[in-house]
Amino acid sequence: MQSSLLNGEIAKIAKAAREASRVLATLSSENKNRALLRMSDELIQEKETLILENRKDLEYAGAKGLSDAFLDRLTLSESRIHEMASGLKDIAKLPDPVGVVTKMWRRPNNLSVGKVRIPLGVVGIIYESRPNVTADAAGLCLKAGNAVILRGGSESIHSNQAIARIIKKAGSEFDIPQGAIQMIPTTRREAINEMLKMDEYIDLIIPRGGESLIRFVVANSRIPVIKHYKGVCHIYVDAGADMAMAEKICLNAKVQRPGVCNAVETLLVHQDIAQQFLPSAIKKLQAARVEVRGCKTTCHIVSEIAFADEDDWYTEYLDLILSIRVVGGVEEAMDHISQYGSQHTEAIITSSYDNSRKFLNGVNSSVVIVNASTRFSDGHQLGLGAEIGISTTKLHAFGPMGVEDLTTTKFIIYGEGQIRQ
Amino acid sequence: MQSSLLNGEIAKIAKAAREASRVLATLSSENKNRALLRMSDELIQEKETLILENRKDLEYAGAKGLSDAFLDRLTLSESRIHEMASGLKDIAKLPDPVGVVTKMWRRPNNLSVGKVRIPLGVVGIIYESRPNVTADAAGLCLKAGNAVILRGGSESIHSNQAIARIIKKAGSEFDIPQGAIQMIPTTRREAINEMLKMDEYIDLIIPRGGESLIRFVVANSRIPVIKHYKGVCHIYVDAGADMAMAEKICLNAKVQRPGVCNAVETLLVHQDIAQQFLPSAIKKLQAARVEVRGCKTTCHIVSEIAFADEDDWYTEYLDLILSIRVVGGVEEAMDHISQYGSQHTEAIITSSYDNSRKFLNGVNSSVVIVNASTRFSDGHQLGLGAEIGISTTKLHAFGPMGVEDLTTTKFIIYGEGQIRQ
Repeated sequence: MQSSLLNGEIAKIAKAAREASRVLATLSSENKNRALLRMSDELIQEKETLILENRKDLEYAGAKGLSDAFLDRLTLSESRIHEMASGLKDIAKLPDPVGVVTKMWRRPNNLSVGKVRIPLGVVGIIYESRPNVTADAAGLCLKAGNAVILRGGSESIHSNQAIARIIKKAGSEFDIPQGAIQMIPTTRREAINEMLKMDEYIDLIIPRGGESLIRFVVANSRIPVIKHYKGVCHIYVDAGADMAMAEKICLNAKVQRPGVCNAVETLLVHQDIAQQFLPSAIKKLQAARVEVRGCKTTCHIVSEIAFADEDDWYTEYLDLILSIRVVGGVEEAMDHISQYGSQHTEAIITSSYDNSRKFLNGVNSSVVIVNASTRFSDGHQLGLGAEIGISTTKLHAFGPMGVEDLTTTKFIIYGEGQIRQ
Repeated sequence: MQSSLLNGEIAKIAKAAREASRVLATLSSENKNRALLRMSDELIQEKETLILENRKDLEYAGAKGLSDAFLDRLTLSESRIHEMASGLKDIAKLPDPVGVVTKMWRRPNNLSVGKVRIPLGVVGIIYESRPNVTADAAGLCLKAGNAVILRGGSESIHSNQAIARIIKKAGSEFDIPQGAIQMIPTTRREAINEMLKMDEYIDLIIPRGGESLIRFVVANSRIPVIKHYKGVCHIYVDAGADMAMAEKICLNAKVQRPGVCNAVETLLVHQDIAQQFLPSAIKKLQAARVEVRGCKTTCHIVSEIAFADEDDWYTEYLDLILSIRVVGGVEEAMDHISQYGSQHTEAIITSSYDNSRKFLNGVNSSVVIVNASTRFSDGHQLGLGAEIGISTTKLHAFGPMGVEDLTTTKFIIYGEGQIRQ
């Protein structure tokens, strides 16, 4: 398993993480929480250092001619450092998932059988250039008793290393082993390939970033991967829906923050109310600078909007663009979602009890909503505490993932000498 | 995504399964249970056909010179057909996991958020030449609302196809779509490779068979895989343990059925009781035709046994062989398990409260047992009902897997017009 590339450095890191994970698994909640609070304090204490290190990354990225949006995500301002620090405080406040007995039952032969939450072990996070992920991911993994191996975007390496150094130092004061939080110290792409082969030491890979990064990870990993490619979220406005509510929710889901995965991309409207609903809704969307693309019927009802082609229905715009299709009813809406959707988040706006049931039962996306904005599909909003990611594959976790999703359960059996007959 | 090999036949099967899975997801428990009972009855009705088809497989395998053990696993006797049939009846009796709301809570903004069990979708089972797996796996997948694609060993193809034909026909009388249970109709190996690329249509692959089959599947799959490579199970006999109980459990765990993954392979014995425990225990093991291999200390205490080398500690014998090591205490036993174990099943025999706690908390195998045989690490024995497999990777399921592990949960949200602020 020793790697020849990179002098086996990645294997050394992974092995050290595996060893640290054994210590972490038995650490008390109090130790972990005190470490998280100290990490939070130290990030604030060291904010000047962080800003200086971040400036190096910004200069490099600026010289490379990267976009303003990219530079914005990369920037560690004083307020962002405070957000990171308060994120760690919030994680300290969450209940510790480790050691919780989720079930316990007695067998006819008097064995007591239970399931108890344990850490996954070692989690690898591969992310793009948002330095705050470093602290968030390390904090969540620590809370769940996991060692973490971080591999951030190459443009943020100075910021990431500074954050990791600060939180590791803080953690070491509370028995957090050195191997528990590790940053891959190179920007070479082969480091990722090496990491993805370490299935002997790493239990889970979470890639966070663009679709091409995620597809690369899935294609090359021997380690289980939890990921989502994209969020093509739908809202279906049913006949008989409260029009004012529908309009308000559609606007919120599209414009409140268009660049995120739980923003709506396609609006499906029942044919019986299209004539009544669409002109006003589209006017308000356009007033909010949304570009609307419609199906034939939509374009017939509201002229002067662009025609949506087949590709539009598959597209996650991540921008102020919305496609609209008029459908025959809830079944047709569900068929559309099944064909073009990404199993992320879908909402129905309805006043029909039957249709709410049909939609809730029939749509197998990770989050299915009645009469609320798709923007609630988020760990914080759902009450999971901080979010480590979101999964649109159904194994292990489906939907927004909180700290509990960084654990698994083992069986425990209490006996008094029982043997198999 | 269309495959060029095999004329795209595997893609067609996978796509049909995906379509069937949408129907299955909303089928009532009653429909599913009635279908399972009819399948059970039909297997008995058609037992002559099954025995005739099985004879073709046995002749082929016999001509190929396969081992007696292999031929035994392949054989469909009348009693095995009755077992298969009663297995389906048992599955019908299990509670339906689909639609169960596992949690529901209210958010400060009055949204009701819940998690509800849904089928995984499409499950692929790749197994070796045990025809009964065909009925078991199809029954469990159906119960959990999943479509199943079966790829059995090439030597059992006539038996498997006959079983699949019978249960499909029975299912079709109760609205089970044709695509819900499908058998890959070729013994060509490329069919497996094709199947493992169908991540667009298949949600989970469960390989059942030898380690080389499983490693092949893991290395080639883009679809999540749940598997276990091997079961190197340990029993640690603590100082102060009830010696009679320890002896009885060790014997049971080794000899009651040595060829299975939850049989014990290595015995760890506290140094303070080795002198007292080992001579009698080894004598009884040898009387049961077990070959014992010992560490230096063990060989010193009981002469005339073979010396266990480094490889022994890693070995799943699946046979009447047991390695024995004398250790300094529970910590050293846990270190040994961590280094050489396979995270399957470990037991401690102890009368110490403290050591039972240490072992239960510190050993992160999928099943950890106090004072009972490792042979209880089994879905039936733990009360999960039938077992679809066992997982020693921690994602999604860890340990014996029942019908509930063939589901996932989605979030449902009930709102009254809420939007994100």
